[in-house]
Amino acid sequence: MTFDQIRNRQEKPSWKGVLPGRPVPFFLDDGDGERSAVFDSLVTVLLSKDETDGQFGVFTMRQPKGDLIVPHSHVDVHEIFYVVEGAARVFVEHADGRQESKLLGPGDFGYVPAGIVHSYRGEAEYTKILGVCTGGFERFFQALGELTDERDVPLTEPFTPSPEQMQEAFSRYRNIPLPDYRWEEA
Amino acid sequence: MTFDQIRNRQEKPSWKGVLPGRPVPFFLDDGDGERSAVFDSLVTVLLSKDETDGQFGVFTMRQPKGDLIVPHSHVDVHEIFYVVEGAARVFVEHADGRQESKLLGPGDFGYVPAGIVHSYRGEAEYTKILGVCTGGFERFFQALGELTDERDVPLTEPFTPSPEQMQEAFSRYRNIPLPDYRWEEA
Repeated sequence: MTFDQIRNRQEKPSWKGVLPGRPVPFFLDDGDGERSAVFDSLVTVLLSKDETDGQFGVFTMRQPKGDLIVPHSHVDVHEIFYVVEGAARVFVEHADGRQESKLLGPGDFGYVPAGIVHSYRGEAEYTKILGVCTGGFERFFQALGELTDERDVPLTEPFTPSPEQMQEAFSRYRNIPLPDYRWEEA
Repeated sequence: MTFDQIRNRQEKPSWKGVLPGRPVPFFLDDGDGERSAVFDSLVTVLLSKDETDGQFGVFTMRQPKGDLIVPHSHVDVHEIFYVVEGAARVFVEHADGRQESKLLGPGDFGYVPAGIVHSYRGEAEYTKILGVCTGGFERFFQALGELTDERDVPLTEPFTPSPEQMQEAFSRYRNIPLPDYRWEEA
């Protein structure tokens, strides 16, 4: 076993236990939380269903300018996008089939309830989004990605899941991917 | 005259109807939302229980450097503080009686579950906090304050509620004020 292998075997990620797992007060510094690499993005869970009696989860997404996230809808998850830094274009399909997209900058807000086809794309060199979701969805990104100790993007080691891992993550979190869906404005 | 009667009588604010009131997709530009003046702060509701099947509400608080908010606890509301700009010191009393305070800067996060005595104070000339709460609490600030068309602080017209309005707001939103509570570090 090489030194690097030994080192990598050590208790990664170092953030294990950073969330209390029950409804008690706690604080996190910027960058702290449960971190995972998902393609070229870093997703950090700040709060989970375990601290909120299942009500909501909170996470940040840091990403470089990149590709459109695969269009998808959640069976039973409501979700917000609040842009903290940079810019993101959020795409939604309303219930009547009408498509809408909006370029969100710092302080701008988007809401996507359950059942609505949506997607988004980082439009700045560096974008940081605060997300809030129905409790229990927040760790989808850990199932889709890889736990990491990195703290920001660009990631030293971007992570591309296998088709099997993607399918397992989408299925477990009741997330319906629509890879063939097209946005007129995208 | 009840609070709802007063609210419905007003022709202002111009933002009436800015939230859809049901779970449909929508977007808000920075500064848009249901705005109220509460003392020297501007609180803007971005999302309410009506859009999230009662799960959670989202709001921003903009404030100048100011006084400590009266210590209080919520009977049944979980709440987060995510600092977007500026700085705020958040005070909590843990279940074992131990007090803790933390100065939060941009990107820092604090969580206060139901039943925990807490307070906070803006520590920068200009502080902007994103809050998330158990669905249904988000309009507490409208009951405590005054609906307004102002978009930022410092407010042209700060608003101080009467003792009766304060009591009605705290009571209706199951918020327990503890004006005699003291923080060792405050």
